[in-house]
Order: sequence, then C-alpha cells, then structure tokens
Amino acid sequence: MSTESPQREAFRYHEVEQHVLRLIDSKQYPPGSRLPSLRAVARHLTASLSTVCHAYEELERRGVVESRPRSGYYVRTLPSPLPLPHSAPAEEEEPREANRSRLIATVLEAVGNPQMAPFGVVSPDPTLLPGKKLGQIMADLTRRNAEQCVAYETIPGNTEYRMQIARRACEDGMPTRASEVVATTGAMEALYIALRVLTRPGDNVLIQSPTYHCFLQLLETLGLRAVEIPSDPKHGINPADLSKALSTFEVSACILSGNFNNPDGSITPDAAKREIVEILAAKNIPLVDDDVSADLHFDGKRPASFKQYDKKGIVVFCSSYSKTIAPGYRAGWMLPGRFMEKALEVKATTNVCCTSPTQAAIAEFLRLDLYDKQLKKLRSALQGQIHHMHECIVASFPEGTRVTSPRGGGVLWLELPPAINGVDLFFKARASRIGIAPGSIFSTRDRFSNYIRLSCCGIWNQRMEEALRELGGLAKELA
Amino acid sequence: MSTESPQREAFRYHEVEQHVLRLIDSKQYPPGSRLPSLRAVARHLTASLSTVCHAYEELERRGVVESRPRSGYYVRTLPSPLPLPHSAPAEEEEPREANRSRLIATVLEAVGNPQMAPFGVVSPDPTLLPGKKLGQIMADLTRRNAEQCVAYETIPGNTEYRMQIARRACEDGMPTRASEVVATTGAMEALYIALRVLTRPGDNVLIQSPTYHCFLQLLETLGLRAVEIPSDPKHGINPADLSKALSTFEVSACILSGNFNNPDGSITPDAAKREIVEILAAKNIPLVDDDVSADLHFDGKRPASFKQYDKKGIVVFCSSYSKTIAPGYRAGWMLPGRFMEKALEVKATTNVCCTSPTQAAIAEFLRLDLYDKQLKKLRSALQGQIHHMHECIVASFPEGTRVTSPRGGGVLWLELPPAINGVDLFFKARASRIGIAPGSIFSTRDRFSNYIRLSCCGIWNQRMEEALRELGGLAKELA
Repeated sequence: MSTESPQREAFRYHEVEQHVLRLIDSKQYPPGSRLPSLRAVARHLTASLSTVCHAYEELERRGVVESRPRSGYYVRTLPSPLPLPHSAPAEEEEPREANRSRLIATVLEAVGNPQMAPFGVVSPDPTLLPGKKLGQIMADLTRRNAEQCVAYETIPGNTEYRMQIARRACEDGMPTRASEVVATTGAMEALYIALRVLTRPGDNVLIQSPTYHCFLQLLETLGLRAVEIPSDPKHGINPADLSKALSTFEVSACILSGNFNNPDGSITPDAAKREIVEILAAKNIPLVDDDVSADLHFDGKRPASFKQYDKKGIVVFCSSYSKTIAPGYRAGWMLPGRFMEKALEVKATTNVCCTSPTQAAIAEFLRLDLYDKQLKKLRSALQGQIHHMHECIVASFPEGTRVTSPRGGGVLWLELPPAINGVDLFFKARASRIGIAPGSIFSTRDRFSNYIRLSCCGIWNQRMEEALRELGGLAKELA
Repeated sequence: MSTESPQREAFRYHEVEQHVLRLIDSKQYPPGSRLPSLRAVARHLTASLSTVCHAYEELERRGVVESRPRSGYYVRTLPSPLPLPHSAPAEEEEPREANRSRLIATVLEAVGNPQMAPFGVVSPDPTLLPGKKLGQIMADLTRRNAEQCVAYETIPGNTEYRMQIARRACEDGMPTRASEVVATTGAMEALYIALRVLTRPGDNVLIQSPTYHCFLQLLETLGLRAVEIPSDPKHGINPADLSKALSTFEVSACILSGNFNNPDGSITPDAAKREIVEILAAKNIPLVDDDVSADLHFDGKRPASFKQYDKKGIVVFCSSYSKTIAPGYRAGWMLPGRFMEKALEVKATTNVCCTSPTQAAIAEFLRLDLYDKQLKKLRSALQGQIHHMHECIVASFPEGTRVTSPRGGGVLWLELPPAINGVDLFFKARASRIGIAPGSIFSTRDRFSNYIRLSCCGIWNQRMEEALRELGGLAKELA
C-alpha cells in the first residue's frame, strides 16, 4: 500500500503514465516489444508499486499496452495504420456565400444529447474537466469577494484574468502585456468581434478548406463570402495557395487555424506560418489566428502561433479555455493587436463586459498553476482515445477509408470511399444514436461529401466501442 | 429587545419602513405633520419597538422624516419642488447617424472610478446588492453540481433560469412559456441581438429623445440611423408623434423604454402603450421593448410593458437583473416573439451560449423567492436617495433649474438654465471628482445641451451631499 496522500498519488500516477507513453511514442519500445517491468518503473521513478500497477492497468484499458500472463506488459501491436485523407484541390472558384446553416443546425441539434454516442461533440467528457476544483475556487471567491463578484467588470475584463493570460502567452513565446488582452465570452465571441471589426457585409474572407463550421455560420450571419484555400491533413496551409488566392480575389481578412485545424487536425509548419504572416503583412490584410486547440499538443511543446511572427499588429489572436478547463465558463480571450480600440467598441455594444465570477475563478485556477496538470490529464486521455479509435476504425470501416493521426487537438478526419455520402451516414448514424459530423459542414463547396469528422473527446468504454463498430458497419452498407 | 431572528427582524424592519413611506407618499401625512408614535406603529404592525425605532432612525438618516425632541417624528418639509424639465420639440429632421461615441466613451471612462462621487453610474451601490446570498448560492451550486457548472449550456439558456423568468413574466401580466425565453449576456446583448435580427446597415431605427446612450452606441456600431420622437418627462411617448414620424420616414424597428426611461424617468401611460403597439402592428414594424427598470417602481405595482399589448409577436422584449440583483452576472434575457429562430442564430454565432454557473445561480435566487425582498430594499433606498437629492438640488442649483420626480428607476434628469452647457459642467465636475452624465449623450441632436442626468443609485452620506452641493455651485459658476 502506498503511504502517499491521494492527491500526491494521483499526480504520481499521471507521471508514470506519461513516462510510459513517452517510451512508446519515442519508438524506443516499438509495437509488440516488452515494456519495463512494474518494479523497474517504480524504482526508476521512485513511485510506489501500486501506482505503477494502476498506471499500466489504465493504459491497458485504453488499449495502449496489453498484459501477457506471467510475462509482463507489451506495447500493443496495432493493425497497419490507414493512409491519410486527401486534401482539397486548389481551385479558383468565385468567392461563395456561406450556405450550410440548415445542415449545421441539424448536426448541432444532435450535440449534447446524452443518449447519443458522443463522436459529434468536440467538448471534453465532463469527468476530464476540473469541475470540483473550480467549484471550490468559485465557492471561495464568491464568499470572500461577494461584492466584487456581483459588480460589473471593466469592458476589457478582469485584471487578474488578463494578467494570467499575458503571463502564459509570454511563456508560450508571445510577449504580451495584460493591457493587450480582451476577455471574451468564449473564443467564438473573439472571432465574432474580430470579423465585426475587420469586415463589412459583402466582403470576402479567406479560410482554409476544410474549416471549423462555426466560422462558416459566422460568415453567413455577417453576410460575408468565403474564399477557400486547401488545408492538407499533413502539411496544413501552403503559403503558395494563399498568395495565389490573394492575387485573384480581394480579401478583407483571413481566419486560419495553424494548429490542429478542426476538422483535419493539421499543423501548418512554423516556416509556413512565418511566410503566411509576411505575405499578409505586405498586403496589409489582417489575419484572425484561431488557436483554441494548441495547448492540446501531444509532443511536449506547444506549436508556434501565427501571432508569434506578427511584427505589424495585423494578427488578431483568439483563444479560450473552453476545450481545456470549462466550456460553461465561456472564458475566451483575444489579442486584437492594432485593432484594440474598435474591438472594445464592439465588445461594449454587444454585451458591455463578461461575467465577473467566471473570469475571477479561471484567473485563480491559472494563478494556482493548476492548468499544466489539467492539460497533462487531457492530453493523455485524448491520445488514449485516438489509439482506441484508430484500432477500431481499421478493423470496422470499409476498405479505402483514410484517417488522420493528429499530434494534438480532439478530432479525427475520415475520408470514406467516394460512393459514401457523409450526410447520409450522419442521418443513418443519428437513427442509431451515434453522433458524427458530416464533412459537408466544413466547407461552402461539395469537396468533402465523402468525409466525416469524429470527436476524440469522450472516454473509451464498451458502449463507445460498439457504437464506433456499428458506425463502420453503417458506412459499409452505404459503400 | 426583540426575540426574533436576525433575518426575520430585517424583514420586519423593511415592512415598517415601507408602511411609513406609504403613509407619507399617500399624502395622508403631509410635509410637516406628526407621524404615528413608535408604539402606535409597533402595535399596528405587531412589530417590536426596537424594529420600529430602527426604521424611523433609518428614515431620518435618509432625510424622509425628522425627529423633534420630546415630540416624535415629523414628515420632513421639503422646499417647494422644482418644475419638471421640458420635453424635446417634435421635429421633422432627416434621420441621423448616431455620432456621440467619443463623448460617450469619455463619460464612461469616469464611471467605475471609486474616487468619483457616483452620480454618473446607474448601477446600485454594491451594499444594496445581495452579494453575500448569491455567493452562498453559487458556492453551494458549484459544489453540488460541479460537472454541470463547467459544461456548456444550450444556446437558449439554462432551463431553470428560463422557467423562473417565465413564471415571473406570467405574474407580471405577460403570459410566457420557458421555451419563449432566450438567456443573454445582460440586456445589452438582448438589444444587440434584436437589432442584428431586425435591421441591416443603413436602416432607420426609431427611438425616443432623450434615450439611453447605449442605444445610440449600438446604432452607431451597426451603421444604423436614428429617427427621434420626443419623450416627455411626465407623459413619455405620445402615439401621435410616433404616427407622424412613421408617415414621414421608413423605419425598420423601434427601441422604446415605456417604463422609467433612462434618462428622463418617464412612464408612457398604459393606454398610450397599447396604442403604440397597435400602430406598429398595423404597419408590421417590430418594437424592441427595453424594460430593464420596470421592477424598480415605487407605487406598489409594476407598470405594464409594451409586450402585454402585443398580439402579433412584433414586440421583442428585453430585460435583465443587472439593475436589481447582480450586474456582474450579466443575467439578461429576451422574448424574441416571432423572431426566435433568427435570434438564436445570432446568439449562437456571437458567443454560442451564456456562462453556466451565473444562470444557474440567478435561477436559484429566483426559485427561493428572494427577489421581491431584494426589490423592496432597492426601491426604498432609491426613494430615500431621491428625497435627499431633490432637497439638495433645490437648495444648491442655479435658479431656473428643473428636475424630474420619477416614480421608479434610478435617475434624475435636470434641465439647467439655457446658458449652462452640460458638457462643460461634466468636465468641470470631473476635475472635482464628481461623476455626472451630460444631456448631449442621450440624443443625436443638440437638444439637451443644457441638461444633465444624475444617478440615484448611491447611498446618501456626507461626502455625497457635499459633492452634490459643489456640483450646484459649479453650475452656478457656468450660468
């Protein structure tokens, strides 16, 4: 029995798990090889045997390792991975009004329904979020600072919240002062403010294809037109495609997700990010940098943001803690760069300021340095979920299926054989209580009609496995 | 000594205070007359003598009554009240783009500065808000429902919150189902959503003059033009003025405050409200009904809303608990009527949904029936503050000053002699650390250049009295 406190033990447990995952990810222990014994790991990490045992069991549950009687734990041999989906071709079609709102609304209706297998929802399972700890912080704050919690915040937001965000941004390579941060009601509001500031109805906005469906909804309600450039599941955005589009069309702003683009999970390499920012700076075209998933990287280092290469203040950086701490706290933020004054004007005339107690609670969570531990837990869960899903997809989906292996974020992007229509599959899956997102909602074009997006934010269990297998069966029926 | 519990005693205390205020307001006891003795009141209300004593002392502190040694309490004789300010003339000027944002921004900068005497801020003094009780509720909720509090809410909002609002709306004469309510981040967001749904840039919007400066800011950022019709401090909006304006100009929507219009405190009579809704319904012009102050009435009964007379769903009702429970919780709401679908689309693409814990906490506050007690406390404080301010204004302001005597809400509207410029007075006052709002920010026209608005949301004390007296002196200097 361990003599350590439960908190301490939970922490050690995560350390052990991360250690083993690193051994596997670094290919030091390839699939099929025998992992270090429980005792060896316990000695190496000076952890208790029960903690190491617990960690191995958990990794087995998540399908990363397997135990062989009287022999120990082995790295699980996965079926050969499926190839990556294709990226969209670069076309030179006229900018198009976003037009998917009906379909998107139908897809979103299914979201949040607890009866559905949650492959449609990109929001971490509640048990992965620090609800209890945040509850304690909130309880403490609303009692201690009762008057402050009911009073208005300033338009740009809670001072401590902005300070903590700036501190973290500095650590992440984006030198930022608290006064440059604006608190928003989720990243969505940051994007909305950015587009209100940067565009007028009828303008063209450049996006990558596929892109997050919420951007398309936003373009549609603001009367904007989309110019789409390809996003490759492996290489993200190619600066040459951007240049070509800009030489053909007049564009008021771009919205790009350089890190773990939702839905294709792509990372645009740092050199390409730099080049993209330079191209845009030269033409004085603002870039809205959607960076909500970057903290959920699996490779030990946060990838660079576009903002890091911004010397002229043309990048409007948007992020939130909705995918990592608490979606319901709507704790978003933006760095509006040189558009600060207009951004505050839009914020003030949209809803004056954000709610006071939620900002204060997230600030305290960050101040107490609880965020890194939370991220570790989430990353590990997402990786485990992806392991399992890959395995199940390889085994159950029709021949010709292709799937991403993202290095962060919470989604898989699947290309199905051309005959399979993702929208048909969506409706069939919904009838079987399985939530998915059809590829069509991620573009104004019909390029992704045989694609689907699956969320990896759930917790693997038998019901999930059955649902994913059933989904593969439904796809085969449509093939 | 009373043997009652502290809560019970506090409640009795408010009852006694309200009883005495009613005796005075009903003119049963005119200024200068002797009020019933402590013992008589205690007997009548079966309250303890100490409770009645406490209430009389408080009313004396607030300047409503005065004690005369060995004789008892008397209704205070106020100097003869000042006449009401004039209303704006009905003009037929071309619709004008809102254009006060610089001045409004300058005025708002001074707001929330604790160094300033708070006649500029229309937000209740924090000690008048139920911070402690809400803190307890929040602490309890975030612990009990930890997972639910960190999870996303639905786009229209927390179910219990919408049910409580619907229940209250029904009690207030507006039959409403929970499914007709949309939660918003303050009333400002409700207004913003309404205008996004009802208008396009370049459209005309009809407003009353003077009107709340936030409406003008909203019109300006959305590229809308204002058609202004007069608001009379006594009679509010005249339906004939509305008809005339509508026959001259094409109007996409109206924003009207029928109850305690900020800044002139006017109530539009019920018959006029009905007529206004009928005129608009006949022309199919939507009405945005801003009703944030109606709960703060002093006459025992909530005045009717425009919504009550709406048979065709053309009224979009907007309100919040920002002026009554907790500005920092941003607990707004709207009844979008027949525009529900579009309203949810705008809400979803602005910030997806409101914060979860704040909605849940306000819902619980309402469910526990704590709202009425809170309103009693606030109304009594506002009335006391108005008493004091009237007295001080009569004594210190230049001859020719006119001031409103509102029957609810939290503001006084002053007309100064024509030579005095309200903006000049604003800057002079600011230099002396006194916050006020110049009349010019309440219209796109120059009609109110010799008007100012004073908030009555503070707590009367010597510093406030000195500041208000000093403000009168500064006005005299400018005369």
